[in-house]
Amino acid sequence: MVKSISGLRSETMSATSAGLDVQALQARLTHAAAAAASAQVDALLVSPGADLRYLLGAGGSSFERLTCLVLPAQGVPTLVVPKLEQPGYAEVPTAELGVQVATWVDGEDPYGLVAGLLDAPGRIAVTEGMSALHTLNLRDAMPGAHQQLAGPVLRELRMRKDAAEIAALRRAGEAIDRVHARMGEWLRPGRTEAAAAQDIAAAILAEGHATVEFVIVGSGPNGASPHHEVSERVLAAGDVVVIDIGGMTPEGYNSDSTRVYSLGEPAHEDVAATYAVLQRAQRAAVDAVRAGVSAESVDAAAREVITEAGFGEYFVHRTGHGIGLDVHEDPYIVAGNELVLEAGMAFSIEPGIYLPGRWGARIEDIVVATEDGVLNLNNQPHGLVVLPA
Amino acid sequence: MVKSISGLRSETMSATSAGLDVQALQARLTHAAAAAASAQVDALLVSPGADLRYLLGAGGSSFERLTCLVLPAQGVPTLVVPKLEQPGYAEVPTAELGVQVATWVDGEDPYGLVAGLLDAPGRIAVTEGMSALHTLNLRDAMPGAHQQLAGPVLRELRMRKDAAEIAALRRAGEAIDRVHARMGEWLRPGRTEAAAAQDIAAAILAEGHATVEFVIVGSGPNGASPHHEVSERVLAAGDVVVIDIGGMTPEGYNSDSTRVYSLGEPAHEDVAATYAVLQRAQRAAVDAVRAGVSAESVDAAAREVITEAGFGEYFVHRTGHGIGLDVHEDPYIVAGNELVLEAGMAFSIEPGIYLPGRWGARIEDIVVATEDGVLNLNNQPHGLVVLPA
Repeated sequence: MVKSISGLRSETMSATSAGLDVQALQARLTHAAAAAASAQVDALLVSPGADLRYLLGAGGSSFERLTCLVLPAQGVPTLVVPKLEQPGYAEVPTAELGVQVATWVDGEDPYGLVAGLLDAPGRIAVTEGMSALHTLNLRDAMPGAHQQLAGPVLRELRMRKDAAEIAALRRAGEAIDRVHARMGEWLRPGRTEAAAAQDIAAAILAEGHATVEFVIVGSGPNGASPHHEVSERVLAAGDVVVIDIGGMTPEGYNSDSTRVYSLGEPAHEDVAATYAVLQRAQRAAVDAVRAGVSAESVDAAAREVITEAGFGEYFVHRTGHGIGLDVHEDPYIVAGNELVLEAGMAFSIEPGIYLPGRWGARIEDIVVATEDGVLNLNNQPHGLVVLPA
Repeated sequence: MVKSISGLRSETMSATSAGLDVQALQARLTHAAAAAASAQVDALLVSPGADLRYLLGAGGSSFERLTCLVLPAQGVPTLVVPKLEQPGYAEVPTAELGVQVATWVDGEDPYGLVAGLLDAPGRIAVTEGMSALHTLNLRDAMPGAHQQLAGPVLRELRMRKDAAEIAALRRAGEAIDRVHARMGEWLRPGRTEAAAAQDIAAAILAEGHATVEFVIVGSGPNGASPHHEVSERVLAAGDVVVIDIGGMTPEGYNSDSTRVYSLGEPAHEDVAATYAVLQRAQRAAVDAVRAGVSAESVDAAAREVITEAGFGEYFVHRTGHGIGLDVHEDPYIVAGNELVLEAGMAFSIEPGIYLPGRWGARIEDIVVATEDGVLNLNNQPHGLVVLPA
């Protein structure tokens, strides 16, 4: 094929997604350039992905051919794009945004093209998702420029969701809640995890997502591995089943929610008491969220409940991650992250308890910090959901 | 969710895919270390993706948490992996392969962990798909080491397919040929490109792929944009339709084939003659393939036919790309690439002629160079396929 891409996803990336207008994009470009200037960075180099979608309304896609928005701290931004892939940006209002377009064709040197747009830069910042192929070739094309990550520059913008973004995340949350509400249709003894996952994936699309980003069906002992996705394990009466699912809506924003189901009464006698600890921990972390507290304090709120109940060693991951145009983005809710949460920051709260070889559970909501508390975007019941066995 | 991944794909990545045994993997690791040594590289740093799948039989997946195979030119390789994601490598026979495993948990520094495994390296090579996040953090953790791309080191191994890999690519080719053979079921006047693409995607899975990698349905004037994927355009009698499709088989190898269809007789009078030029060009390039010729000479073989017929300006991309565990990989069949083809190299031959605003066509086969010629892995008829209108 001519270009590598998840073929059926491109329709979701239009410039008009999430109600973006030229003014909103213009403001983002201006703020990004200002953020670069205040970080002493001469230019941001943004390859396809969520950062590009944030700045231009189109995320594009790329593989070995370089596409890159060159956004100088001072001056005119330029979208460098293979001529072949230029039609993918047809909906970006480049002229109104004051963005130049520079195309290149196979055999030409796109890295030299980028370097030629900048005047002997001292520091450039590249998007975190840029491949080493492009990162190191850009390094060699601008030997005088120190490369750093654009994440710390752009996250200051992207972490704080505006009203339109929060509304888009709310719609994503409602969509995944509708899938959880239907879980009894698919989880039954005798079916495999993989078969259930196929049905769940179809429902993720049917309930309002443009893509399925992940489906985790962790039944019985598989639920004790937070990594587990799906397997050919056959669901059995008495299983505790962890369902962690998400997708991207046509607006480009992601959902991500975990609930725990039981096929009839749980086979293990310790489920009810242990699950109650987890539910208290998840609730404690949600309740700890408000503008002004640190990310690590929210992690600690969940961890303290679990640790005090004696399960500390079985909670083997951080409490959460930011979410928006990316499934995982800043802010991370993790020990050591002293970042002070602000109104408009959106992230997951998802503590878990994993008992190796036996069963596991995780409860996950996406929440948004507000001035005086928290907005919860996932509102299916948090208790263990007992389905017919 | 706990981890970002295309949830339903992981089953395809097992260590036993493509008939890999411990011996075959061991040979690859040994050859990769030797290639690093002869390239004066102290260590290869391989993050999840096709290179990792090539070396360990499991490609894994990753996002912001570092997973990295540290393969020194001399010494013991180590797989650095988040403890959370370690179960994803359960099928990798690390002990038999002599690969150490070093896990880390949230809050620890994985870059320092990698640096600590190496003894003041002077040159390290990172996989081309490694994100800038990891690339630059590894740079900072090893300030004395010059980073270069691992591609030129590993492509020497990966470009030359062994018999098992060629057999796997052959099966992938047969699978996508079966989809092309059924195209008449889905391309009909009155249907949209998007609706046809959905059916084609389902058939790609049904005919033996584990994933759909891309579906391009370029009808009428959309076929003149090589970038085009799918749209809501309604197919009409007289349309020329470019269908470029591919997927990954359960063995982990990719298919990629393009054929051109017409819904009844083409509406434009120049289709037959122009298509005949394209078909001659594609055939000329296929016929030019054999061990000992340069990649660029194969590109030239197609380009000369098209240029001499007066369509040179309408063939706007290179003639082909390598294929294997990646859809696009070395060798690239492009002007300026003086690489001498060797037996076992697999790549696409896909010239196109694109007449803006009118119609376009591209014919694509995957071929393997042999000592005395070429093995063609796509064997559906190359002529314009006229379907009922």
